[in-house]
Amino acid sequence: MLCIKTGGPAAQDRGEYLELSLPPLQEMTRFHYVWLRDHCMCDDCFVKDTEQRKLDTALIPADIAPSEVAVSSKDSSLTIVWKEPNEHRTVLSFDFLLKNRYSIDTPEIINPSYRRPKKTLWSGPELQKVPVSVQFNDLVDESSDKGRADAFQALSMYGVVFIDGTPPTPESSEKVASRLVGFCRSTHYGHYWDFTPNLEHADTAYTTIRLELHTDTTYFSEPAGLQMLHLIENKKTKGGKSMLADGFYAAERLRRLHPDSWSFLSSKVLRFRYDDQANRMRTETRIIGHNPSDDSYEFIRWNSDDRAPLNCLSFEDVPKFYKAVRDWVSVLRSPEVTAMFQLQPGRCMIFDNWRVLHGRDSFEAAGGVRRMCGCYMQRDDVLSLTRVLCADRPEMWRDAPAEQD
Amino acid sequence: MLCIKTGGPAAQDRGEYLELSLPPLQEMTRFHYVWLRDHCMCDDCFVKDTEQRKLDTALIPADIAPSEVAVSSKDSSLTIVWKEPNEHRTVLSFDFLLKNRYSIDTPEIINPSYRRPKKTLWSGPELQKVPVSVQFNDLVDESSDKGRADAFQALSMYGVVFIDGTPPTPESSEKVASRLVGFCRSTHYGHYWDFTPNLEHADTAYTTIRLELHTDTTYFSEPAGLQMLHLIENKKTKGGKSMLADGFYAAERLRRLHPDSWSFLSSKVLRFRYDDQANRMRTETRIIGHNPSDDSYEFIRWNSDDRAPLNCLSFEDVPKFYKAVRDWVSVLRSPEVTAMFQLQPGRCMIFDNWRVLHGRDSFEAAGGVRRMCGCYMQRDDVLSLTRVLCADRPEMWRDAPAEQD
Repeated sequence: MLCIKTGGPAAQDRGEYLELSLPPLQEMTRFHYVWLRDHCMCDDCFVKDTEQRKLDTALIPADIAPSEVAVSSKDSSLTIVWKEPNEHRTVLSFDFLLKNRYSIDTPEIINPSYRRPKKTLWSGPELQKVPVSVQFNDLVDESSDKGRADAFQALSMYGVVFIDGTPPTPESSEKVASRLVGFCRSTHYGHYWDFTPNLEHADTAYTTIRLELHTDTTYFSEPAGLQMLHLIENKKTKGGKSMLADGFYAAERLRRLHPDSWSFLSSKVLRFRYDDQANRMRTETRIIGHNPSDDSYEFIRWNSDDRAPLNCLSFEDVPKFYKAVRDWVSVLRSPEVTAMFQLQPGRCMIFDNWRVLHGRDSFEAAGGVRRMCGCYMQRDDVLSLTRVLCADRPEMWRDAPAEQD
Repeated sequence: MLCIKTGGPAAQDRGEYLELSLPPLQEMTRFHYVWLRDHCMCDDCFVKDTEQRKLDTALIPADIAPSEVAVSSKDSSLTIVWKEPNEHRTVLSFDFLLKNRYSIDTPEIINPSYRRPKKTLWSGPELQKVPVSVQFNDLVDESSDKGRADAFQALSMYGVVFIDGTPPTPESSEKVASRLVGFCRSTHYGHYWDFTPNLEHADTAYTTIRLELHTDTTYFSEPAGLQMLHLIENKKTKGGKSMLADGFYAAERLRRLHPDSWSFLSSKVLRFRYDDQANRMRTETRIIGHNPSDDSYEFIRWNSDDRAPLNCLSFEDVPKFYKAVRDWVSVLRSPEVTAMFQLQPGRCMIFDNWRVLHGRDSFEAAGGVRRMCGCYMQRDDVLSLTRVLCADRPEMWRDAPAEQD
């Protein structure tokens, strides 16, 4: 039998795996030798600069075995010398092993996912009360990331942030996006928009008609993550108030009031499309992205205008769909859910397009000017920056940090 | 009972739906009245310029009913006058109804999805023989879209295209991307790259070590769609051959040789990550995205270097995972699967990052120069442009065109 030197916790060789007592855990923890070899972090196996694996995992022999195992309380680490090749040595800290252990004996527990953000849902009237304002000067202050972190915190918890005091120019608005995330997400609508109502693009957003609450780019396989909109000029126009709604709050309300419609919209796949001369965007998606495993919401995708001809449901489901739409829209449009307000130049609005629905009342622009600028930002970058900049704000997270957060 | 005027096919009012004989179908087709009202395409209900719905679907009464129904063979259309409000009139062509009918009596048939592209799988040696070369001059020719369509056809069928005769400059290479899709997808790596080996970014791609076959941005929730790489300068270097493999071909081979490993990698979710000082990218995904409903592949995501610590599998699954990796990598690295070749300046390479794995042998650059430029392009835009530019190439599609294609 293998000789195990323990200057501390107990360890047992079990053939293809090692059983280890990892304080403060009571029960023994098991690690396959192939796993331990795969997670070696020496310079030959791991690129510290890039935190990337360098070891060729596929070449680890299936029957890899140690020639020596040493457990040290003093160093809080496990050291293994491998039989082959060349007596390679692997040292792993107890801390790493604790955070990344993949099973304990009873019950079988799988590590939770990455740290998940807390979401605070808001009703329409509550939007005025939640802390979703960050000053432009604080955001663009290069000497501190506090303004950025505040903005990401608001976006993560509430799905919306207003950058107040933004000079009403395209340049300053673009500076908001470039300071926040660094770059925009280009689409067929362009890179950064600066528009007055016309039909430059084949989309109702470029007209003056009322736009009911919706999310953007429902027809992308991955819809835009954040949307920024800044009304930089608004002269002699009538109407055009903005609307926002927390889609997760609305979904929870739908679930309570019309559970059958909630079930329908969170399970049935529908089709969305965008067409112009150069583009045919198509996608299939649920309206309500609910994750039953932890009862959380992942996304809302809803734009009735962009629904493709409804040909993907069964005869029995068609009336259920129309009932679900009536219920969903009645919830969305209630004053309990919709916040309606007049945007003013200087108040740059950014919202999570996977959660918050936006809309705009119709307006008259004859003789006046309504000029809006904005852009999309990519979801991955937003989540990534939130993890980095808000790592030390425990109030934002549902879970304690893990090694991989 | 409702009076139905038919100057042709039979129609029957069934209370909440209409039963209609639509030539050339033998069986009757059923449409709920609420569906017929929702698909009205008059100027009040539909914005023809944008092909978007203008009608407020949620306001259609659940019990909407017609006051008149007329079926005309001469006009090949169905006309309905609605009881309320205001005797609104809806005219729908037989063609539209045929293409978007959602059920027939027996059996219940749900319309197929959007038109799906045909994929022709290739082994390593076959890459030399498949038609995946488009001339730069044909691509950038503004007077014709044929070169673009050829490139999208190659990408759609084979997942790769070489733009040959591209002048070896950053400007000309960028022109390839801007002519093909119109814009790049920006990431934390930048908008458009022009790099020589260094550690500017925290990624092994910026070093000189061998890069095994992988896909890029495994840690994005939606990985980059296309990747363009153009080796614009290669002087006095040794090694550095390029590798490509058709991930779908490899997956099929894995399925045949090691069905248990194929099942594992196409069902178990793993974690990928990217870390540097400013970013913490995280995602969870299967390696092989296989869709059992029509036995098709959606994606391959694989970069062993970017795997997060393996803490999401059960004790029993850990050895299965390492076996699956050994099997998968042995398939990928076999000469049957991998194509290996020396890229030359002038041969701009573009591949589908959701299907084709790429790699690069190690190289020595001491005293020499290896300069590469390239970018990512977004998947939605690629699929959209392929639908538009290749609409009339039936050899590319598995299904006949439908209304919504």
